[in-house]
Amino acid sequence: MQLAMIGLGRMGASMVRRLLAKGHECIVHDMQPAAVAALQSDGAIGAASLAELIAKTARPRVVWLMVPAAFVDAEIEQLKSLLAPGDVVIDGGNSYYRDDIRRAEMLRELGMHYIDVGTSGGVAGQGRGYCLMIGGVPEAVERLVPIFAALAPGIDAAPRTHGRSGEAGPEEQGFLHCGPPGAGHFVKMVHNGIEYGLMAAYAEGLGVLRNANVGKCGRDSDAETTPLRNPEFYQYEFKLPEIVELWRRGSVIGSWLLDLTAHALRKDAELAAYSGRVSDSGEGRWTIEAAIDEAVPTPVLSAALYQRFTSRGEAVFANQVLSAMRNEFGGHIEKKSQDAQ
Amino acid sequence: MQLAMIGLGRMGASMVRRLLAKGHECIVHDMQPAAVAALQSDGAIGAASLAELIAKTARPRVVWLMVPAAFVDAEIEQLKSLLAPGDVVIDGGNSYYRDDIRRAEMLRELGMHYIDVGTSGGVAGQGRGYCLMIGGVPEAVERLVPIFAALAPGIDAAPRTHGRSGEAGPEEQGFLHCGPPGAGHFVKMVHNGIEYGLMAAYAEGLGVLRNANVGKCGRDSDAETTPLRNPEFYQYEFKLPEIVELWRRGSVIGSWLLDLTAHALRKDAELAAYSGRVSDSGEGRWTIEAAIDEAVPTPVLSAALYQRFTSRGEAVFANQVLSAMRNEFGGHIEKKSQDAQ
Amino acid sequence: MQLAMIGLGRMGASMVRRLLAKGHECIVHDMQPAAVAALQSDGAIGAASLAELIAKTARPRVVWLMVPAAFVDAEIEQLKSLLAPGDVVIDGGNSYYRDDIRRAEMLRELGMHYIDVGTSGGVAGQGRGYCLMIGGVPEAVERLVPIFAALAPGIDAAPRTHGRSGEAGPEEQGFLHCGPPGAGHFVKMVHNGIEYGLMAAYAEGLGVLRNANVGKCGRDSDAETTPLRNPEFYQYEFKLPEIVELWRRGSVIGSWLLDLTAHALRKDAELAAYSGRVSDSGEGRWTIEAAIDEAVPTPVLSAALYQRFTSRGEAVFANQVLSAMRNEFGGHIEKKSQDAQ
Amino acid sequence: MQLAMIGLGRMGASMVRRLLAKGHECIVHDMQPAAVAALQSDGAIGAASLAELIAKTARPRVVWLMVPAAFVDAEIEQLKSLLAPGDVVIDGGNSYYRDDIRRAEMLRELGMHYIDVGTSGGVAGQGRGYCLMIGGVPEAVERLVPIFAALAPGIDAAPRTHGRSGEAGPEEQGFLHCGPPGAGHFVKMVHNGIEYGLMAAYAEGLGVLRNANVGKCGRDSDAETTPLRNPEFYQYEFKLPEIVELWRRGSVIGSWLLDLTAHALRKDAELAAYSGRVSDSGEGRWTIEAAIDEAVPTPVLSAALYQRFTSRGEAVFANQVLSAMRNEFGGHIEKKSQDAQ
Repeated sequence: MQLAMIGLGRMGASMVRRLLAKGHECIVHDMQPAAVAALQSDGAIGAASLAELIAKTARPRVVWLMVPAAFVDAEIEQLKSLLAPGDVVIDGGNSYYRDDIRRAEMLRELGMHYIDVGTSGGVAGQGRGYCLMIGGVPEAVERLVPIFAALAPGIDAAPRTHGRSGEAGPEEQGFLHCGPPGAGHFVKMVHNGIEYGLMAAYAEGLGVLRNANVGKCGRDSDAETTPLRNPEFYQYEFKLPEIVELWRRGSVIGSWLLDLTAHALRKDAELAAYSGRVSDSGEGRWTIEAAIDEAVPTPVLSAALYQRFTSRGEAVFANQVLSAMRNEFGGHIEKKSQDAQ
Repeated sequence: MQLAMIGLGRMGASMVRRLLAKGHECIVHDMQPAAVAALQSDGAIGAASLAELIAKTARPRVVWLMVPAAFVDAEIEQLKSLLAPGDVVIDGGNSYYRDDIRRAEMLRELGMHYIDVGTSGGVAGQGRGYCLMIGGVPEAVERLVPIFAALAPGIDAAPRTHGRSGEAGPEEQGFLHCGPPGAGHFVKMVHNGIEYGLMAAYAEGLGVLRNANVGKCGRDSDAETTPLRNPEFYQYEFKLPEIVELWRRGSVIGSWLLDLTAHALRKDAELAAYSGRVSDSGEGRWTIEAAIDEAVPTPVLSAALYQRFTSRGEAVFANQVLSAMRNEFGGHIEKKSQDAQ
Repeated sequence: MQLAMIGLGRMGASMVRRLLAKGHECIVHDMQPAAVAALQSDGAIGAASLAELIAKTARPRVVWLMVPAAFVDAEIEQLKSLLAPGDVVIDGGNSYYRDDIRRAEMLRELGMHYIDVGTSGGVAGQGRGYCLMIGGVPEAVERLVPIFAALAPGIDAAPRTHGRSGEAGPEEQGFLHCGPPGAGHFVKMVHNGIEYGLMAAYAEGLGVLRNANVGKCGRDSDAETTPLRNPEFYQYEFKLPEIVELWRRGSVIGSWLLDLTAHALRKDAELAAYSGRVSDSGEGRWTIEAAIDEAVPTPVLSAALYQRFTSRGEAVFANQVLSAMRNEFGGHIEKKSQDAQ
Repeated sequence: MQLAMIGLGRMGASMVRRLLAKGHECIVHDMQPAAVAALQSDGAIGAASLAELIAKTARPRVVWLMVPAAFVDAEIEQLKSLLAPGDVVIDGGNSYYRDDIRRAEMLRELGMHYIDVGTSGGVAGQGRGYCLMIGGVPEAVERLVPIFAALAPGIDAAPRTHGRSGEAGPEEQGFLHCGPPGAGHFVKMVHNGIEYGLMAAYAEGLGVLRNANVGKCGRDSDAETTPLRNPEFYQYEFKLPEIVELWRRGSVIGSWLLDLTAHALRKDAELAAYSGRVSDSGEGRWTIEAAIDEAVPTPVLSAALYQRFTSRGEAVFANQVLSAMRNEFGGHIEKKSQDAQ
């Protein structure tokens, strides 16, 4: 099939390469000419402008957007006048699913289709395949199955679930039509919410292992600090790279995220390249907001999100309030040194 | 009554002054001679050593320890050989209740009594009175009622609870024999666990008010940052000192901690004197450990404790793990600047 | 002054009674005629319909709505055609502040004013006064100061904050113009978010005290249950009504919520009248959503909210997922009995 | 090699079968004769008593305990008089690492060795292999490498971590000598703590997906219930079995736990066989206690643990306190029906 791709960043470019490798034709555009040129040399057809991209694409067109969520509306606004009835616009980025509902309605009135595709797999997806969570009306989604199947990892990417037999459903190949417009990004949103929780679970556990030697360090003893009661139980010097590698085989907590962590720790057990300021890109927040609207308790997913906020200094004022209160009722002066407990 | 006080820090000194003011006789000792001298000028009898303190105190003695929890065992070890059967040792500091159980048993074998008194009220207690949570055997506790009554705030410190009438029980005066050895510090431990939770609730809420102007600040829009969808809803510039003052009258969330916060914010709405490194002195930790032993869920109290750990940099490694994972799967580079979202 | 009150439920009726007692004239309406009649006998002027209410009120009118948040828009829709330019509509209920912004703009276009008043104090407010958090344009708010001052508790409701002197600002009397439309309900929203956190802190702590006797109960020991390692440390039978009463005087955690808890436990230490299904009325949710929009971590306030969701059975499916996983990897069969640990 | 196994429950029996299949000789004992007989028919040598087991095992003996943690000390007490210097006792169950330290010291004084092995893999381990986290002195651990290697999954169980080359270390085969006595169970403890967090992350996310249809259900609107503001955004009927299957291929959140969840949901999308009472077996609790001793914040792991406590009704009293407070300040009556929000 033929597909027009807008946005050739990390994700867009690697998806195009996977599609090309599977025999699909890709016309590509990006604001940065170098990104276009790089893919041209890999076999894509370049376009210097949106207009050129659309002109080079045959009707009914399939236009895939792979741009930051904040820019999707502006792109669609431009595309509206370039596209024709029957064309399909796909947003494969990290849009809020509520925007999908609005956009699908807007394009539907113009006779065009809008499909939202939550895309997971990261930069490894070019070789490994992408997990695709798809929302939209059935007729548009069905037309694109060859594209989705090419991007998805395929059934061999995981052992078949015991009890499943016969022909593999699309979900076993790694793509799924989850429901009407927005359904794809809703599922992707929750996917990312879960991802935050999983990541935090590993990170917290590794933190506990790393500090299992605190019994070797002296700790202050004063009215504001409780001494460690049993230093003899905290004398371990654990080698995190080996432990994480160990858990990859046979343990209950094996996962792809663990594989990645093993790789990162293999390179540097101290992770000194990182300062620990952790971004969040929206889905974790929206997951919590959906949970609250639904009255579903999500303490783990929330804690993971707040951990990220806090890593960026967003709790400082609240902590100043705590220190001020302590000073008010107890005359406690803030400890300044790193070893304050 | 006569009472020997060991430890003349913020709490010990102010308690002695309250006892003196109520007509009790206090013999006092501290490692710092200046602290002893200061109280002598207020009417206490000074002692330059433990031995002198004990020699100056009439049998059956009442010796009150007001020293950091880490030093209590050493003090008792010294006192053991100086005291006589029938004497009472009181630990009014922040000991772990399990230590009380052990100490009470040890002194019991010597014919002495041990009483644990959880003391709340902070530096304001000299005038306001202290809330005393008491553990020990009844015969020892009962003997000390005049001391407890003098230290406690008295019934007028709060409106009488609707439905209570007749003679005021000790709990209405501000002291209570909570149970056998350790009971006092167990109740004080939970008191402080609750205190952490209350403080955090206010601090978080004030943080939300303070940031209600984020709609006025630009926020980055890129693949790693979600834009603020509705900046028009975050245009408020709230005056925290006024709002906290407001809540002191008639609201559901009025409290003494709120009174203190109003005072702190009145002095400096920015709390610039504080950096936000928040200590914890043990009780919050022990409360969680008790909750876990009891299988009682304490998500709020735990969150409050962790907030303090995190304020002191204890989450940095976990956050580095998160950044490393994000780099592994998404090629995400950590944002360094303060405004990274 | 004259004020028209719509909605004579628990809150509306008691506010009218306070206003009448302070010499204001109240015209009142409610869908339930009995509610109107009750207040007429207390000195209010009754109205059988909205039209009658408005007709009996002199221009420029002050119309206070005290109805469930879900009905405010419908009321305003009806009022729009009955009111005249210069009239003021006040929403004193628990509206979402974003609705206030919309409503204020709509009424502004008609020459009318809209004021949002977050009202705290509960059913005790009739005698104790209400804490009023006010949003709106200054000219409308200023006109109503006599009403606000009558409803508010007044400066004597709390000791003056150290450092404040001279004439008392409105915040010291218990009402405050917090900012433009929505500001009142924003502050009230956060007030309630804090309230949830405070309540949960007390509730969790009391749970820990109540279970301090678990060492007396046998606990299963099998592959799925960890035995209690130190039953000797959990032998306490704490009397919660006495302890809560104790904390009311001199402790750091004294508060109005604690006063109320003392009253409830005084009536029944087992709280047997309650099953523990806890409602939430919106503000707690909105506080978390605001925190997330602002990227302010609120782990304590969130935990308190989720506790309420969970109390209503909203975590059951997630828990079934956990049980299913445990069965899958460990062959664990769910324990059914109450004493399963 | 020859190994004596005590305890032939789910885990012990399947480990023996794996060892037999790999050519090791196993002498086996269990309190239940049928369990012994079953393994005899699979090629193990049965023993009707501890004494017989030890008599049939050649010195230096290797005795592996696979019994509930609560029974390990009693077993060791019996074994002490039956074993000889140079013999090794292995605890492969879920002991608290502090017990390991004590036991290792006790056996060391008798000239015997104690090794603690945290064993992960569940019932699938017989075919898949077990992940073994090992603590003990090097000379004892090294002697047992053939046993560990037979139980472990081997290097082919996971793709080799990028950057690793040459001969595979033991951690790449699935077993690791983590440190001195207790180190194995410490690492296993944290492993399980992480496991709780991972499980909860999935469970919460699935809960959010399952309730994405709440916009179709009416919700009460009264003073105690906030209406759902945007029912149009919650109209999805997600098919959880398909979505979980989808995530198994190419997504960031793929894991063995997800594989198991896909299997469970494949069998019954409603998980109707489970009521949602979730046990915890100790490690999750100890992980939190270690974290607190180390001052490492673990909000996610704690939330996961508390979720389990709450699932068993352990929050009911705290919730009754909340309801009582609400009744006190607002006259709120508890809602009883299932649809109360």
